[in-house]
Amino acid sequence: MNDDALADRLRACVGAPHVTPGGHTPAHEHDARGRYRGRARFIVKPGSTQEVAAVVRCCHEAHVPLVPQGGNTGLVGAGVPDNSGQHVLLSLVRLNRIRHIDAPNLSLTAEAGCTLQAVQQAAQTHGLLFPLSLASEGSCTLGGNLATNAGGTQVLRYGNARELCLGLEVVTAQGDIWHGLSALRKDNTGYALRDVFIGSEGTLGVITAATVRLFPAPASVFTGWVTLPNLEAVLPLLALARQRWDAGLTAFELINGTALTLVQQHLPHVAQPLPATAWQVLWELSSPQAEADLRPTVETFLADALAAGWITNAALAHTHTQAAGMWQLREAISPAQRAQGLNIKHDVSLPTSAIPTFIQHMQEELAARIPGVMLVTFGHVGDGNLHYNVQAPAGDDPAGFLARWEGEVTARVHDRVMVLGGSFSAEHGIGALKRDELARRKAPVALAMMRAIKQALDPAGLMNPERLL
Amino acid sequence: MNDDALADRLRACVGAPHVTPGGHTPAHEHDARGRYRGRARFIVKPGSTQEVAAVVRCCHEAHVPLVPQGGNTGLVGAGVPDNSGQHVLLSLVRLNRIRHIDAPNLSLTAEAGCTLQAVQQAAQTHGLLFPLSLASEGSCTLGGNLATNAGGTQVLRYGNARELCLGLEVVTAQGDIWHGLSALRKDNTGYALRDVFIGSEGTLGVITAATVRLFPAPASVFTGWVTLPNLEAVLPLLALARQRWDAGLTAFELINGTALTLVQQHLPHVAQPLPATAWQVLWELSSPQAEADLRPTVETFLADALAAGWITNAALAHTHTQAAGMWQLREAISPAQRAQGLNIKHDVSLPTSAIPTFIQHMQEELAARIPGVMLVTFGHVGDGNLHYNVQAPAGDDPAGFLARWEGEVTARVHDRVMVLGGSFSAEHGIGALKRDELARRKAPVALAMMRAIKQALDPAGLMNPERLL
Repeated sequence: MNDDALADRLRACVGAPHVTPGGHTPAHEHDARGRYRGRARFIVKPGSTQEVAAVVRCCHEAHVPLVPQGGNTGLVGAGVPDNSGQHVLLSLVRLNRIRHIDAPNLSLTAEAGCTLQAVQQAAQTHGLLFPLSLASEGSCTLGGNLATNAGGTQVLRYGNARELCLGLEVVTAQGDIWHGLSALRKDNTGYALRDVFIGSEGTLGVITAATVRLFPAPASVFTGWVTLPNLEAVLPLLALARQRWDAGLTAFELINGTALTLVQQHLPHVAQPLPATAWQVLWELSSPQAEADLRPTVETFLADALAAGWITNAALAHTHTQAAGMWQLREAISPAQRAQGLNIKHDVSLPTSAIPTFIQHMQEELAARIPGVMLVTFGHVGDGNLHYNVQAPAGDDPAGFLARWEGEVTARVHDRVMVLGGSFSAEHGIGALKRDELARRKAPVALAMMRAIKQALDPAGLMNPERLL
Repeated sequence: MNDDALADRLRACVGAPHVTPGGHTPAHEHDARGRYRGRARFIVKPGSTQEVAAVVRCCHEAHVPLVPQGGNTGLVGAGVPDNSGQHVLLSLVRLNRIRHIDAPNLSLTAEAGCTLQAVQQAAQTHGLLFPLSLASEGSCTLGGNLATNAGGTQVLRYGNARELCLGLEVVTAQGDIWHGLSALRKDNTGYALRDVFIGSEGTLGVITAATVRLFPAPASVFTGWVTLPNLEAVLPLLALARQRWDAGLTAFELINGTALTLVQQHLPHVAQPLPATAWQVLWELSSPQAEADLRPTVETFLADALAAGWITNAALAHTHTQAAGMWQLREAISPAQRAQGLNIKHDVSLPTSAIPTFIQHMQEELAARIPGVMLVTFGHVGDGNLHYNVQAPAGDDPAGFLARWEGEVTARVHDRVMVLGGSFSAEHGIGALKRDELARRKAPVALAMMRAIKQALDPAGLMNPERLL
């Protein structure tokens, strides 16, 4: 089908103003990091689930591949077209209604194009919490969060996007609508279709709406910062926090001294709560109890950790502004890294018990191989998730460093991760970036089952081709 | 292949003592309720994952169907062969090793044939909690719990079996071993194969081992019993408990007066904490805090609920024995029902907000249709899960009642459940019992996707045939 005929059909599906030719809209066709610069055949913005279904049917009949896109904040190139100019980019941004909040059931139904922040705010208006929280929450969308099984800072308590989802509405690869917006905590009627679509990165169908879990908003939140005597102390400290607070522990973020030094150099206005040391932890305790009732347990926790030798210094936020400042420091690491220059990023996970071993062995290995290398290590260590980033030695050209070392360093990092039972993609997904890595590192039995599922649900192979698998 | 040849091959896989001819072992061939009385061709008990794989390959080559079985405590006939005498029953009971506990990672790896209680006890020896808890925990197995996505009494806080599972080891329908025993909280490397097998009732492959999440054991547990002024009060009471305790609320079980009366009649030795009323609730609060620190919040909660008119009376367990007694009363409902006689059982779920509406409308409808009908209503109402059981009017013959009314009553119950956005199988699954119901009530789009997945992973159709789909 030629471009004019296809455009006519797509306009009939969604209205003429919502079909634009590709090649002119970097906001949709390039990814946020500028690593993938694609070109769509058309950019199509349906306004309803029915229109999404019509577009998918139209593309299916014309045998035109489709790339679904949410807020286009992904880090692995899963949501942008390649540069063939052959793919229709299906943007979900106009599906942005909060459809329903059922407060007694602690559930909310929203369309895929709602920003994460809009969903959080809708919950807040009912005094409730939607706990998914990411740096990009102002622009990422609920559909994208689910298609990539997003993680973020509150996974320790509330789980990934997968655990927060009760039901889905999906347009299948054939253009049928699956009305799976269940608001149930328990439903054992057949295979877990919901979970098949969550994390499938648009390769099996298009998520158009979701019903998610809400939680009572906590009455009090304590945010604190501690320094560790050494890396090994992170495990007993985490165990103590869990034992004392169980589900109350809502964040436990490990940050190394190099990360904090980079923030100090490039973003000196961001306050550092404690003097520089090799390893620090940002922790957060959320509770339905009043702050005054909880303060003694916080003070006892810190005193006990100090007495046990698992922390050397502690700062506790006494105001919302101070707490926000601590999170600002945590979120300043990535911008500080950008300011320092291009670097080799990894999003890995490990059994929590293996984190100190991984960090120590990797540090020895990389320091020996690349003298002066800067290791920026931070992450959601309570979930076993590290953002393990490798930066050029001071004074080296970052671009040259990246070109020279990326392949080898990533292979070394992922090799060690796999040996320790970890994953080379903890929360960012596969997309285009790690497709080769998936093919190389995933067990052949698992890959064969994934390909069988892809073939079963998208036999024409038109949904987000050459992504993930 | 004739029986002798097949037996020889199976003996070569698992050793002669572990292959027995079918037709002589009701403990394996009949279900626990005596509703399904099958006959296997052979009963085979492999002793390792490799032996499971060998048996599956053998059956695959010989084109012989296989029925995997755990503790044989299922309620829907998913784990017993039909009476054709053609199916090999694959019992996992010899795969009963706890393989590994990683305490700092809060994870445990066990084989499929371990009883749930053995897994709970292994966690306890490390001061940790595996929270899955069911009436049949002494004999049901971890593999069966996962194959059916079991629920139970702690779902409110900890989730279903699905949410408690980190990784699986599976023998595929082709006899390959998928080593998916990840112990990770975050792993976004491709489709959710784990979740495809969980809840698939042995129709896609055989779960041979699992890695599950553990939790710190709570330091204190409060167990209490309250009477409600009316059914409507259950929602604000639940909301208050959640707001005050959030994840601390580990159980919230609604029980109607008829259920309690039956217990009193048939099991008079079981103590009832409060005088009879139409609706009562058993609640449980678990906390990492000491009992003395928490007691004031419990007392305030009860005082506030009383002042608001959401409860009329309250009993609080002051000893472990008293707490156990309250749970004993809850667990006595099913035996009391059995003593009263055959009845029509339903395992339904609803959005929690729809529970009072459902119960009230259903009561009017059934009382009008069957004068004197006894409605035994109880369940995990915090999860929206009701065991909605219908018993013959006093004096009627139970067997005659069942024969006369089961079809119509179940149709009426499930009709109303579906209208209210509920599910006709909350935690028991589909098996043989609800296979027609699934085909009738599930959306055709969803059924088509399930059939495509079955075809993709078990193209020969040999895994637990005519179960679920």
